[in-house]
Amino acid sequence: MEYSNAERASILVQALPYIQNYNGKIIVVKYGGNAMVENQLIDSTMRDIVLLTLIGVKVVLVHGGGIEINQTLKAIGKKSEFINGLRVTDQETIRVVQMVLAGKVNKDLVNLIQSKGGKAIGLSGIDGSMIEAKIKNQDLGYVGEIEKVNVNPILDMIDKGYIPVVSTIGRDQEGNIYNINADTAAAKIAGELGAESLITMTDIAGILYDQNDPETLLSVVKLSQIDQLIADQVITGGMIPKVECSTNALKWGVKRVFIIDGRIPHSLLIETLTDAGIGTMFIKD
Amino acid sequence: MEYSNAERASILVQALPYIQNYNGKIIVVKYGGNAMVENQLIDSTMRDIVLLTLIGVKVVLVHGGGIEINQTLKAIGKKSEFINGLRVTDQETIRVVQMVLAGKVNKDLVNLIQSKGGKAIGLSGIDGSMIEAKIKNQDLGYVGEIEKVNVNPILDMIDKGYIPVVSTIGRDQEGNIYNINADTAAAKIAGELGAESLITMTDIAGILYDQNDPETLLSVVKLSQIDQLIADQVITGGMIPKVECSTNALKWGVKRVFIIDGRIPHSLLIETLTDAGIGTMFIKD
Amino acid sequence: MEYSNAERASILVQALPYIQNYNGKIIVVKYGGNAMVENQLIDSTMRDIVLLTLIGVKVVLVHGGGIEINQTLKAIGKKSEFINGLRVTDQETIRVVQMVLAGKVNKDLVNLIQSKGGKAIGLSGIDGSMIEAKIKNQDLGYVGEIEKVNVNPILDMIDKGYIPVVSTIGRDQEGNIYNINADTAAAKIAGELGAESLITMTDIAGILYDQNDPETLLSVVKLSQIDQLIADQVITGGMIPKVECSTNALKWGVKRVFIIDGRIPHSLLIETLTDAGIGTMFIKD
Amino acid sequence: MEYSNAERASILVQALPYIQNYNGKIIVVKYGGNAMVENQLIDSTMRDIVLLTLIGVKVVLVHGGGIEINQTLKAIGKKSEFINGLRVTDQETIRVVQMVLAGKVNKDLVNLIQSKGGKAIGLSGIDGSMIEAKIKNQDLGYVGEIEKVNVNPILDMIDKGYIPVVSTIGRDQEGNIYNINADTAAAKIAGELGAESLITMTDIAGILYDQNDPETLLSVVKLSQIDQLIADQVITGGMIPKVECSTNALKWGVKRVFIIDGRIPHSLLIETLTDAGIGTMFIKD
Amino acid sequence: MEYSNAERASILVQALPYIQNYNGKIIVVKYGGNAMVENQLIDSTMRDIVLLTLIGVKVVLVHGGGIEINQTLKAIGKKSEFINGLRVTDQETIRVVQMVLAGKVNKDLVNLIQSKGGKAIGLSGIDGSMIEAKIKNQDLGYVGEIEKVNVNPILDMIDKGYIPVVSTIGRDQEGNIYNINADTAAAKIAGELGAESLITMTDIAGILYDQNDPETLLSVVKLSQIDQLIADQVITGGMIPKVECSTNALKWGVKRVFIIDGRIPHSLLIETLTDAGIGTMFIKD
Amino acid sequence: MEYSNAERASILVQALPYIQNYNGKIIVVKYGGNAMVENQLIDSTMRDIVLLTLIGVKVVLVHGGGIEINQTLKAIGKKSEFINGLRVTDQETIRVVQMVLAGKVNKDLVNLIQSKGGKAIGLSGIDGSMIEAKIKNQDLGYVGEIEKVNVNPILDMIDKGYIPVVSTIGRDQEGNIYNINADTAAAKIAGELGAESLITMTDIAGILYDQNDPETLLSVVKLSQIDQLIADQVITGGMIPKVECSTNALKWGVKRVFIIDGRIPHSLLIETLTDAGIGTMFIKD
Repeated sequence: MEYSNAERASILVQALPYIQNYNGKIIVVKYGGNAMVENQLIDSTMRDIVLLTLIGVKVVLVHGGGIEINQTLKAIGKKSEFINGLRVTDQETIRVVQMVLAGKVNKDLVNLIQSKGGKAIGLSGIDGSMIEAKIKNQDLGYVGEIEKVNVNPILDMIDKGYIPVVSTIGRDQEGNIYNINADTAAAKIAGELGAESLITMTDIAGILYDQNDPETLLSVVKLSQIDQLIADQVITGGMIPKVECSTNALKWGVKRVFIIDGRIPHSLLIETLTDAGIGTMFIKD
Repeated sequence: MEYSNAERASILVQALPYIQNYNGKIIVVKYGGNAMVENQLIDSTMRDIVLLTLIGVKVVLVHGGGIEINQTLKAIGKKSEFINGLRVTDQETIRVVQMVLAGKVNKDLVNLIQSKGGKAIGLSGIDGSMIEAKIKNQDLGYVGEIEKVNVNPILDMIDKGYIPVVSTIGRDQEGNIYNINADTAAAKIAGELGAESLITMTDIAGILYDQNDPETLLSVVKLSQIDQLIADQVITGGMIPKVECSTNALKWGVKRVFIIDGRIPHSLLIETLTDAGIGTMFIKD
Repeated sequence: MEYSNAERASILVQALPYIQNYNGKIIVVKYGGNAMVENQLIDSTMRDIVLLTLIGVKVVLVHGGGIEINQTLKAIGKKSEFINGLRVTDQETIRVVQMVLAGKVNKDLVNLIQSKGGKAIGLSGIDGSMIEAKIKNQDLGYVGEIEKVNVNPILDMIDKGYIPVVSTIGRDQEGNIYNINADTAAAKIAGELGAESLITMTDIAGILYDQNDPETLLSVVKLSQIDQLIADQVITGGMIPKVECSTNALKWGVKRVFIIDGRIPHSLLIETLTDAGIGTMFIKD
Repeated sequence: MEYSNAERASILVQALPYIQNYNGKIIVVKYGGNAMVENQLIDSTMRDIVLLTLIGVKVVLVHGGGIEINQTLKAIGKKSEFINGLRVTDQETIRVVQMVLAGKVNKDLVNLIQSKGGKAIGLSGIDGSMIEAKIKNQDLGYVGEIEKVNVNPILDMIDKGYIPVVSTIGRDQEGNIYNINADTAAAKIAGELGAESLITMTDIAGILYDQNDPETLLSVVKLSQIDQLIADQVITGGMIPKVECSTNALKWGVKRVFIIDGRIPHSLLIETLTDAGIGTMFIKD
Repeated sequence: MEYSNAERASILVQALPYIQNYNGKIIVVKYGGNAMVENQLIDSTMRDIVLLTLIGVKVVLVHGGGIEINQTLKAIGKKSEFINGLRVTDQETIRVVQMVLAGKVNKDLVNLIQSKGGKAIGLSGIDGSMIEAKIKNQDLGYVGEIEKVNVNPILDMIDKGYIPVVSTIGRDQEGNIYNINADTAAAKIAGELGAESLITMTDIAGILYDQNDPETLLSVVKLSQIDQLIADQVITGGMIPKVECSTNALKWGVKRVFIIDGRIPHSLLIETLTDAGIGTMFIKD
Repeated sequence: MEYSNAERASILVQALPYIQNYNGKIIVVKYGGNAMVENQLIDSTMRDIVLLTLIGVKVVLVHGGGIEINQTLKAIGKKSEFINGLRVTDQETIRVVQMVLAGKVNKDLVNLIQSKGGKAIGLSGIDGSMIEAKIKNQDLGYVGEIEKVNVNPILDMIDKGYIPVVSTIGRDQEGNIYNINADTAAAKIAGELGAESLITMTDIAGILYDQNDPETLLSVVKLSQIDQLIADQVITGGMIPKVECSTNALKWGVKRVFIIDGRIPHSLLIETLTDAGIGTMFIKD
C-alpha cells in the first residue's frame, strides 16, 4: 500500500497522546503458544517491541514454548506419562523444558529483537534466582508453583538499556528446576513490577460472547462480570486460567490487562498506540 | 481521512529505522519568518517537536520574529531610519526587539509546546550569557555579531528534560543588548552542540532550479556546487544568506543541514521520520 | 569612605554567623514597584544577590513590573477600562503584560545579574508550566488566580547553578495567559519551596506605628497582632494585601518573612548578613 | 581432616597478599570439556568462583559443552557428516548447539553458582549481540569465526553485581547463529576486558616436558619458547590450539595466562590464592 | 607448620559462609588495654582487620591506650591525685591523654594497618565533632560522659574506602576536651552505626564460670542471665563495666556482641570466619 | 569600633570580586612557628578559615609545631644531640614529634575550627599513607625527605565537606615515621593539588629590603630576582629555605605564593578578600 507523506505524518501525530501515556511505563507482554508460530508474525511482533522501546516504553517480554518442547521430546523419543491429561514432568523432561525454553525459544527471540535494531538480554527464572518455585503436585514431578518472584534482574536489565526476555522456568534453593506456567509467571512479574499493563497475545480474537460471531467481541470486561461469564460458558476451557491470571494481575496492582489477538499483524502496536482496542481489556470495577 | 488499524501500525513501523537513526541525537530547528505566521501550522509544528522529543530526539528550537517586531514598532509609532535598506537599531528599537522576541514570541512557543504535552523552557541569548555579541556596524546600532556561543544553558535544559526554545538576542559584558540574525545564531548553536542536523523551516519549497517549476527541486546540494548555483542565479536574494548559514553549519560540524518548506503540514516530521526528503539537503562533498 | 584593612576584615568576620545561618538555604526575594525604579539601587540589589549566591545562599528573585507595563500600554495608545479602580485586562493588555514582564523586566534583571558576575536564567510562569492559573473575576479579564505552583523548574535551575529570575504570569491548560499578582506568587513560591525566608522589597521603611515618625518602626510583628494593627489603621491601603501575603507565606511554611525598605542601598545584604534588621519581620506566635 | 582454629586463621592470613593482588581485577575462567564432567568437581569450582567474587575478584566464567552437545545429537538420532575429522554443522546441528550451550550447560552453571550463594546471570553471544561472527569455512556450515566481541553486556552484569556466565555461540547481522570455539572466545573476551588473568581449566596437569612424568611440569613458559616446544612435540595435538589461544590472549593485553588441572579440587583457588602454581603459566618474554 | 595446597584451599572454602554472612556489614572492634601490648599480637590483629576489609567487611577500630598514657604521665613527672581510686584528670593530664591517644596510639595503629596493605585514617572524637561530651563528675575533672555520637565522619571514611581508626576523646561546644571510656564509646558508636557486631578484645578467655578453670567458659550469655552472674560473682571487678557496655550495645541495636581473648593470635579472624567461637557472645533473650 | 549598616554592607560588597575569584579554588595555608603562639591570633585565623570555606574556598591547613615539640621534649627531660646546630632525631624524639604534631597541635586546630562553626578532620602524613618519606641524612636520624605526596586523602576530605588539617610527619613502607619540614610539605602538597595559592603565615612583615624599615616591604618578588636578593642579603637566614619552598611551589604549578605576616589579625582574610596585599607575593616572570 502507498501512503503520502502527509498521511504518514498525520498518523504519527495521531499516536502522540498514546506515546505520552506510555512514556517511561512498564508493559509486560506475554507471548507464546499459537500466537508464536508464524515467522512473519513473530517478526512483526519483535519489531513492534523495538519500536515501543524507542518511544520510551519499558517492554518486558515473557514467553512460553509448549509447541517446541513437544517437538524436542518427540525428537528424542521421550514417551510421557499423563495424569488427568497433564504430562508428568520427570527429570529427563524438565531438562528438555529448560533446554528448549532458555536455550532455543529465548535466544531466538533475543536474536530477532537484535536483528530489528533492539538490544535484548535473555533471562530465565534461574538467572539471578528470579523465580523461586516449589513442587505443585508430587505426582506431576517438576511442575512448579511460584514461591517468590525477584524482579531485580529485570529492573537491572532495563536500567542498563536492555529489553529483558524471560523464559519461565524456576528453581528452589536446592537447585531443582521447575517448569512454570508462563501466563501465571507473566501476571506475577507484572504485578511485582507495578506494570502499567499486561498484554497476553493469544490466537483468539478476545472474549467473544458468541464464539462463532466475531461481532460479539467483549472489548471491556469488569472483574465482577467474570464469574457470570464462566457460568454462561462464554469463558471456557483453556481461556479460564488465562482469565484468572488476568484478574490476579489486576489484584496485584497492574493497571490494565489485555488479551489480544496475536494473529493480527502489529496487534501489539495497534493496542498501545491507537484508539482501536483489539481484543478484550479487563478492568477493576 | 480514515485509516485502518493495520495501516496505522504499518506506518508507525515504517518510521522505526528513522527513529533509531535520530534516537539520542540533537536536532536544531530554526523557525521563523513566513513559516511562522499561520496558527494551524505553528500548532502542527509544535506537535511535531513534542513527538520527536518523545521518541528520543533532543530538539532545540531557535526562533526569529521579524514580523511581530515590525507590528510592535508600528504600534508604538516608532519611525525607523534605514541605511541601504537595513533598519538602524537604536536604543528604543532594541528594547522592542528584546521585548517581542524574549517576551512574546518565545513564551508563545513555550506555551504552545506545553499545550501539546511537552515540557519547555524559553531562553534568550541573555540567559546564562548564552550569546556573547558585539556591534557589527557602528551606523546600524545594536545589530550584533556573535563573539561566542555558550551552549551550557541549552545542555542543562536538555539534561533536566526540557525542550529549550531560544530567542536570538545577545549581550556584551557591559550589558548592552543586540539583535542577532536568527539563521546565523541557529547555525552557530548547532555547530557548538555538534548537532546531528540543522533544519531551517522557510516559506519556499527548497532550492528550485527553475523557480517557476516545483518539479525542478534540488533535493541534494553539495558544498562545491553552491558558488555555481549563485552564479547561475538559482540561489538568489534572501536565500543567499540562508544558504551561507547552512554551509557554515556543515563546516562547524553539523552532520546534515536542511532547508524545508514550513508551509507543508508536519514537514518537520516528514523530513525526519520518512524517506521522503522535502526541501533541500546540503552536504559536504 | 575609606576603611583600613583591619576594619574590612573585621566586618567580614562579623558576617560569619549570618553566613553560617543561611548557607544552603533558599531565600525568595520579591522585587518590584517603586523599589525597582532607580538604576543605582537595582544595580546594588543585583550585586547583593550575586554575593548571597556566592556565600551559599540559594536566591530566587521574583519580580513585578507594573510601572513598565503602564508605560508600554501608554506607548501603544491602549486605553483601559476600569472596574472599581481595577484595570480590565483584555487580550491586547495581557499580551503587553506578557511581553513587558517576561521580555523586558525579566531579561533586564537577568542581564544585570550577569554583569555583576552571576549566572541567571529568566523564567516565566509559562516556562515548564510553573504557574497554573484560572480566571479570577470574569469582568476583569485575564487577571489570574493561582491554581497550582510547580517549583520543579526553579529547583532544576538552582541545581544547575543558575539564579532563577521569575516573572509572574500564569497559564491554564488551554494556553490562556494570565497576569498574576507578584506578591501573591512570591509567597506561594516561597511556601512551595519551603524557603528559609521571603523578603519583600518595598519603598517604605516597614510598618510604622505612626506613619509620620520613622522612630516608631515595628521591627517584629506577630501573626496575632495583625488584625488589631489593621483595625488601628497602622496597616492600611496597599500595605494590607502585602501583609496578607506575608502571613500566608508563614502559614505555608516559610520560616521568616520580611518587608524591607528597598530604597536603602544594600538593604537586602544588611537584612541577611548583619544583626541590624531593617524593616519589619513577621513571625508566628 | 581436622584443623585447629589457629591453623585456619593462619591459612586465611597467608592468602592476604594474593587477595590484595586480585582485588578489583577481572579474571576470565574458561571451563569445559573433561574438566567439567565430575559433579563434585563442578561443585567445588563454582564454590571457588563465589569465594573469589566475595573477596573482590570480578570473575567471568566462559564455558564450552562439547560432550553434552554430542549426547543430545545422539539422543535425537542426528548423524553428522565429517570433513577431515571436523563435524559439519548444519542448521539442525547448530540449533542443538544453541539449545545445549545456552539452555542446558549455561543455566546449570548459573543454577549451581546460585546454590553456593552467588548471584549469576547467563549470557550467550547472542545476548546484547556480544559475539559477532561470520562463517569460517563454507563446507563446515555454521562454525563461526569471531568478527567482534562487544564486552558491554559482561561489564553491565559485573556493574550490577552479577557473575556473568558466558556460552560461546555467536550471531551475524542477519541473525544466523554460529558455534564458536570456547577457548578462542575466552581469549578474545579476556583481551577485550583487559583481564588480569585468563585461566583455562583442562584435564591435564599442564605442559609436561615428558608426558609420562608429572615431575617434568613446566610451570612457566615464555612466548619465545613455544615454537620450539611444538617442534619438540612437547606441545602436541589438542593442546596446540589451546596454547595458541593463550599466546593470543597475552598479545591482546591479558597480563597472565594459565592452563591448570581442573581435576584437582579447588585448583582455581589454589592458583589464585596460594603461592603454589599448579599447571603452566604463560608469560611474555 | 606446612599445609598442602588442598588443605589451604579447603580452609578458604570453609570460610565462605562466614564471608557471605559478614559481606557489606559493619563490625566495630574495640581494642586496647592488655590485649594491645605485645607487638606480634598487634601486628596479627591489624593483618586480620585488613583481611576482613578485603572480603567486604566494614571494620571500625576503636582503641584505648591507658598503659601508654600512664607511661607518658610518668615520663613528664606528673603526679596525679586520686579520688576513690579514680585519677583526677586536670588540664595538664587531659593534654597528655589527647596527645597520647590521638597522636601516638592512633597513628601507630593507622601506620601498622597501612604496612599490612590497608588504607586507614585516624579520627579522634574531636574530628568532625564526632563525640560530643560533658563533664561527668566535677571532682574528677576532664573525664567525659557522652552526650551525642555523630557517626558521619566514620561513614564518610568508609564511603571513601578507608578503615576508620577512632581514639575516644570528646569535646564540648566550648572546645573543652574530655577523656572518654573506650568501651562505652565503642558500644555507643556500634549502636549508632547499627553494626552487625561489636567485638571487644580483652586479655581474658571470656566469661569463665570458674575463673580457675578455662573449661568452664560460657560461650553464650543471655541478657536475662547477667544479673545472676554478677550476684554469683562470676562477672566481677573490671569485667562488670565491660559487660554493661555489651548489654547496652545490644539494646542500642547491635546484633551480636562478643568479648574475646585478644591474646590468642588471629582471635578476631577465628571469631568471624570460623565456627569456633572463642570467648563469650552476648545475645538478647 | 562601631560601623553603620551601610558601611558593613559596602565592605561586604567590595569583597565580591575577590570571592568570585577564589570560589571553588584550593588555597593551602601553611601555619606554624611564631605565627601560631598567641591564642587570640590563632582564634582569628581559624575564624578566617571557616569564613573562606563558607564562601566557597577550599582551604587546606598545613601546620608545624616546633615550639610545642621543644616544650614536650623538655618536659620528659630528653637531652638532644646536635650536629651543626641540627637536632638529631632518634627513636624517642620522633615519637614525641608524632605525638605532639598529630595528637596535640593538629587536634587543637581541628577543635578550634569546630568551635568557630567549621567542620574539620585532622590528617597526618601517616593517614592514607599521604606522605611517603625516606631518611635524609643518616646522622640526623628520623628527619625525612619527601619521596611522594599522595593527595587523595585531602581531596576525599574536601569532597565530604571537611577542612583538612595536616600535620607533616611521613612514613616509609616499613612503617618508620619521619619528621618532615612543614614548609616543604606544604609547598609539595599545594603543587600536587594544583592549588590556586599557597599562603605561608610567618612572624615577619614579608621581605623587607631594609629589615629595619617596614616601609621597604617588597610586595611582589619575581623568581628571577631571588638570587640577587639572597646575594644582597635581603633574604637571609631562616627566610632562605622558606623562599625556596615558595619558588618550588610556583614551579610545581601553584599559581600564586605569598609570605604574609601572621601577627596581623585577619591577615589571611585581608590577603584573600581585599586589594590590600600584606606581605610578599612571589610570581613567575
